[in-house]
Amino acid sequence: MKQILVLNSGSSSIKYELFDMDAGRALESGLVERIGEGESCLKQTLPASTPKSPSQSRSIDVAVPDHRQGMDLIRRALSENASFAGGEHLVGIGHRAVHGGETFSGPTLIDDHVLQAIQALVPLAPLHHPANLIGMEVARSAFPDVPQVAVFDTAYHQTLPPYAYRYAVPQDWYQRYGLRRYGFHGTSHAYVAKQVARHLGRPLTDVNTVVFHLGNGASVTAIRGGISVDTSMGLTPLEGLVMGTRCGDLDPAILIQMGKQSGISLDQMDGVLNKQSGLKGLCGANDMREVLAREAAGDQAAALAVEMFVYRIKKYMGAYHAVLGRLDAVAFTAGIGEHSAEIRARSCSNLGSFGIAIDPALNAAVEPPIGEIQTADSRVKVLVVSTDEEFEIAEQTLACVQPAGR
Amino acid sequence: MKQILVLNSGSSSIKYELFDMDAGRALESGLVERIGEGESCLKQTLPASTPKSPSQSRSIDVAVPDHRQGMDLIRRALSENASFAGGEHLVGIGHRAVHGGETFSGPTLIDDHVLQAIQALVPLAPLHHPANLIGMEVARSAFPDVPQVAVFDTAYHQTLPPYAYRYAVPQDWYQRYGLRRYGFHGTSHAYVAKQVARHLGRPLTDVNTVVFHLGNGASVTAIRGGISVDTSMGLTPLEGLVMGTRCGDLDPAILIQMGKQSGISLDQMDGVLNKQSGLKGLCGANDMREVLAREAAGDQAAALAVEMFVYRIKKYMGAYHAVLGRLDAVAFTAGIGEHSAEIRARSCSNLGSFGIAIDPALNAAVEPPIGEIQTADSRVKVLVVSTDEEFEIAEQTLACVQPAGR
Repeated sequence: MKQILVLNSGSSSIKYELFDMDAGRALESGLVERIGEGESCLKQTLPASTPKSPSQSRSIDVAVPDHRQGMDLIRRALSENASFAGGEHLVGIGHRAVHGGETFSGPTLIDDHVLQAIQALVPLAPLHHPANLIGMEVARSAFPDVPQVAVFDTAYHQTLPPYAYRYAVPQDWYQRYGLRRYGFHGTSHAYVAKQVARHLGRPLTDVNTVVFHLGNGASVTAIRGGISVDTSMGLTPLEGLVMGTRCGDLDPAILIQMGKQSGISLDQMDGVLNKQSGLKGLCGANDMREVLAREAAGDQAAALAVEMFVYRIKKYMGAYHAVLGRLDAVAFTAGIGEHSAEIRARSCSNLGSFGIAIDPALNAAVEPPIGEIQTADSRVKVLVVSTDEEFEIAEQTLACVQPAGR
Repeated sequence: MKQILVLNSGSSSIKYELFDMDAGRALESGLVERIGEGESCLKQTLPASTPKSPSQSRSIDVAVPDHRQGMDLIRRALSENASFAGGEHLVGIGHRAVHGGETFSGPTLIDDHVLQAIQALVPLAPLHHPANLIGMEVARSAFPDVPQVAVFDTAYHQTLPPYAYRYAVPQDWYQRYGLRRYGFHGTSHAYVAKQVARHLGRPLTDVNTVVFHLGNGASVTAIRGGISVDTSMGLTPLEGLVMGTRCGDLDPAILIQMGKQSGISLDQMDGVLNKQSGLKGLCGANDMREVLAREAAGDQAAALAVEMFVYRIKKYMGAYHAVLGRLDAVAFTAGIGEHSAEIRARSCSNLGSFGIAIDPALNAAVEPPIGEIQTADSRVKVLVVSTDEEFEIAEQTLACVQPAGR
């Protein structure tokens, strides 16, 4: 049995998931949270042993002053799992990393040189990278004999052509500051595109898909034959769709006018556009379930927020259809994409001239992990796909530590 | 004979054009430029008397210290034109005004109250409005008995639905600061949409059109039955397409990162994004003829600039097709739109699945003022239309001073 451990380190948390790669299933998942905050906590979940039985969870309150002790805690928790035991089946550890810049276009075996290269990218992701790096360092100490792999959220989008990733700003902003579209959620988009092709029984290289990853963060990617050719998030995750708390696309002059009129600083602007905008800025709630409930209860601001959310999706649907030329499939994934039949239906309304039409009954009844919801005469397939970024990281990690053919 | 005088006042210039509205043609056009700069100049053009004869121009260097004297100069120049004579046929003066905010949704007869309302909108167009206001004031003094009308660049877009004109930022940015999509070039988009319907021999209310106004400034509007339902320029003319010197769409976080990394101020950022970006920022030239020539000579930066310009057009073509649901016609207008067959061809390439295909021979041979360039089996009509914002202002002015039925 080959096992892969996937780690996702934040500034005050480490999430983990252990996979049996032969069976393609999770053996255990969990997280250490509130690291360094005095009231830390380990949560552990063992999946159900049979499809009918419940999963088992436990939560332990324990002081975890830093990431190193958080990692030790995870290692001890794993040791109690009979499948993991002494870790003799562990062939690799995959780390989620937010930003690979132009340096990393695929999963990368971690060594000192790679850690330095990631360190050099901190200016592009000042909030996330330091935590990602700490996670890699403590995992290398905790499992010194296990190869470790960094899997970047941006890597999948390194195939964008220059006319899609450049901005129409002075060239030296790109050359000196690396200002370009990087895109995010790459692991999810890559995973979903593969699932769509597999489900349709066609080679990945033959299928053109637009994938909508609609969670609290949201992005859409145009994928030609498995290759990302454009994506809505840009230099940062702020651009593109309307999100839970992020504004998405904006007249850039708004920052200039608001800066002058209200006197708020760039740091404050950053906070407002990332944390106080999107659905929350429009109607006060950032959870789409709550926004839809408010709309149903007659809240005009919530109704506008939903209309703007689906309208932005529809515009990207059209734009990326034009980019791809031929569109075979549209896929919805992540929290909202997987669970809101209403958002899917409204996003695809009046697109008959694009060959896109949703069957209401199929849309309401679709079940995980994947299903089609288009009408019988819809030229384009419309799918709902359960994303699994951790499993995709595990697969990319395995491919990296045991290349095909070895 | 009914005559309308159209005026466009800038900070150091006044452009004018006199129309015979019965014949639907210009009697004279001209401008006073470099007002207040010591070396002012009046340029005057009389149209050709027959289609084969040349138009007549003359240029007079004369000191014009302020707009009032500029207006006097224009009045004297007009008096020498036998058609104008003492101005007894002049039934109205139409003023181009850049920004009508949410106050003005159509052409408006100017009185003291209207001037105050325009004054109140100065914060939305701090560069243009003061000059527009001066033009209105001096024209009222020069022609005190002639009704004057303000025609706003934004008015045509006041029909946008809230989900298209709002941004996903905190609601009070809209309520307190008026931050929303206004759109510009409205007079041109309105004029072109009418010409398209007339040319196709269909009622304006039955035709769905996407109009690309591609000049040094560039914008695109989705028009459903003559009504603007979305447009690419936003709070300001900075948003949307790649332009000669403006960036168009951008990750808003770029302003935050560049502000922090390079330390440039918001005012400097405003200047760079409006005057040093777009084609100019990408390759050093902002005139599309020069950019295309550089590309043909092997200049990689120019090639990228053209690719980005047409790629952005293509994305909006798809997005607005999705917005309209059914698309009947695409129209290209303004400098680049009317004169660059290459840009038209590249913008419409690989859109067969949208029912859009251009015939190369028709595209190369099309002549003003209007012509179709699509292939015989293209479902969507593609037209090249000569825009005439001054004549549209004249028509709206006439309709305002002599409402139908009187």
